[in-house]
Amino acid sequence: MKKYNVAVVGATGLVGREMLKTLSQRNFPIKNLKVIASQRSAGKKIKFEDQELTVEAVQADTFAGIDIALFSAGSDVSKEVAPLVKKAGGIVVDNSNAFRMDPDVPLVVPEVNGSDLANHQQIIANPNCSTIQMVMLLKPLADKYGLKRLVISTYQAVSGAGKKAVDELFAQTKAHLAGEAIKNEKFNHQIAFNAIPQIDVFLDNDYTKEEMKMVNETQKILHTPELAITATCVRIPVVYGHGESLNIELLKDFELGEIKTLFAKTKNVELVDQPAAEKYPLQVATENNDNVLVGRIRRDNSLKNSLNLWLTANNLRKGAALNAVQIAEYLIENELV
Amino acid sequence: MKKYNVAVVGATGLVGREMLKTLSQRNFPIKNLKVIASQRSAGKKIKFEDQELTVEAVQADTFAGIDIALFSAGSDVSKEVAPLVKKAGGIVVDNSNAFRMDPDVPLVVPEVNGSDLANHQQIIANPNCSTIQMVMLLKPLADKYGLKRLVISTYQAVSGAGKKAVDELFAQTKAHLAGEAIKNEKFNHQIAFNAIPQIDVFLDNDYTKEEMKMVNETQKILHTPELAITATCVRIPVVYGHGESLNIELLKDFELGEIKTLFAKTKNVELVDQPAAEKYPLQVATENNDNVLVGRIRRDNSLKNSLNLWLTANNLRKGAALNAVQIAEYLIENELV
Repeated sequence: MKKYNVAVVGATGLVGREMLKTLSQRNFPIKNLKVIASQRSAGKKIKFEDQELTVEAVQADTFAGIDIALFSAGSDVSKEVAPLVKKAGGIVVDNSNAFRMDPDVPLVVPEVNGSDLANHQQIIANPNCSTIQMVMLLKPLADKYGLKRLVISTYQAVSGAGKKAVDELFAQTKAHLAGEAIKNEKFNHQIAFNAIPQIDVFLDNDYTKEEMKMVNETQKILHTPELAITATCVRIPVVYGHGESLNIELLKDFELGEIKTLFAKTKNVELVDQPAAEKYPLQVATENNDNVLVGRIRRDNSLKNSLNLWLTANNLRKGAALNAVQIAEYLIENELV
Repeated sequence: MKKYNVAVVGATGLVGREMLKTLSQRNFPIKNLKVIASQRSAGKKIKFEDQELTVEAVQADTFAGIDIALFSAGSDVSKEVAPLVKKAGGIVVDNSNAFRMDPDVPLVVPEVNGSDLANHQQIIANPNCSTIQMVMLLKPLADKYGLKRLVISTYQAVSGAGKKAVDELFAQTKAHLAGEAIKNEKFNHQIAFNAIPQIDVFLDNDYTKEEMKMVNETQKILHTPELAITATCVRIPVVYGHGESLNIELLKDFELGEIKTLFAKTKNVELVDQPAAEKYPLQVATENNDNVLVGRIRRDNSLKNSLNLWLTANNLRKGAALNAVQIAEYLIENELV
């Protein structure tokens, strides 16, 4: 089997480390692996299987011979560094927001729109975490019934904001339990025992960037630029796993049982929907689970052809690292590298 | 000023204690106050202002001479004990689910439908916490624009499930931080650093009782039995204060500024909506605030005449104890006692 030279840019971050773990767990065909981070982290050691890799900062020749570079170091780094990979002849799978809405850049969840990779131009975007898990469920519904409108409310984990955010949740929680004052540094408000109805910055329309990502990226991934979508994104004091409450209006009528069967048959989706046994998707259940969990599926009697459901998925795995690695695997399987 | 004989039934619970605090803070015209709880708590002492009151269990003559009894001891106690108060000539303001949908029982949020108290038959129901805070905002919208449909997702505090639930959240949180195993007793799943998409039991339609309370109680309070409403209720690891993400379809078009002004002018509603300053309603901000906080108000471009907003309120105060005391105050002011 052919092997590839791989780089992980942002290798010391939460998603970067998850990318390394995922590459190993899935036996990604690696010839040589480079771990890249900021100048500050250069020289640090990272264990990868039986190797000890040294973190490098980006240099002029860093990407010479690299086939695939997985990026998760923020938009600014992606904008600056991705062109260097492209120039050196490699492919970038970028987890940041930098290129997602660029019409020349495929925005891909392999199970949903892997075929969009066919005409890639060396830069491929990994969608936003909340969007990835949602489109995994929307795709089979869109194919079978057609989508009319989505009303989304999210319950997002702090790990989506990085390692410092997780540290801050724990530090604030400990302080609160000890009756001490709470410090906000990474978050603009208390996150311990609180919810913050803001993720990312506010835009001119008073939606947050995260909310508009869910609208715009979903439309792009599903090839339905006019699909009616509205979202409210909220950070809650959960460490791993995003939850979403989804109200879906379909174009055609449906049977609930049909929809449950459809999800049960969908690859990498897991139906967890037994109200009588009090079983439904939980965020803590996603910690070691790569699937999107869906449950609480019920008819919305307030509107024709409508339903409610609840979904959870691991925001660092399917929501980020795993999806990026799956994109790389798709490229290899389809001889697009 | 005339004074009244008052009883608080369920006085040792979270809401019962909040009722006592509220009666004192609002200088409720009390002649004599009885604190009532289960046989198990009888004999305990409760401080009320400068008095030390002794908790009593219900006896045959407990309610003799009582003018108003505030109940928060669960549905079973309400069903059994409320008729005793009525028989003794007193009025019950009941915080449980026992009588809310009884057509002979007014279900009241004083600012919204206080006038429904006019024909009370000695039993009055306090609505569900999530419903109370929501109808405070829906009423001015209904009056000005008319309501067409609501899609609700809640972010509810554990204190809504009582003192044991709060203790369990803290115990689980400490165990998790210490790397110890987590025990579930009050909750059926881990609540520390997790969300549980189930509040109260499941009904035949796979909605929870809490979700259907939001539908049925809202229709009753607003006198709009056909209003289209759908709800998803989720418990999150927050101690005090319920959050709600609300998508509202109105019958008429609106200006966003008009709606903000309307809320700013609504009694006991507080507009907290400055995205540029990252100010919006938080659950921790409701701890010592009796108002319903509303913000994140924005046009929903996915549907005509629609908007999204986010609200928070203290579930033990406006969501329970305060609303019950306000009902009692309304009765007195309008000579309905």
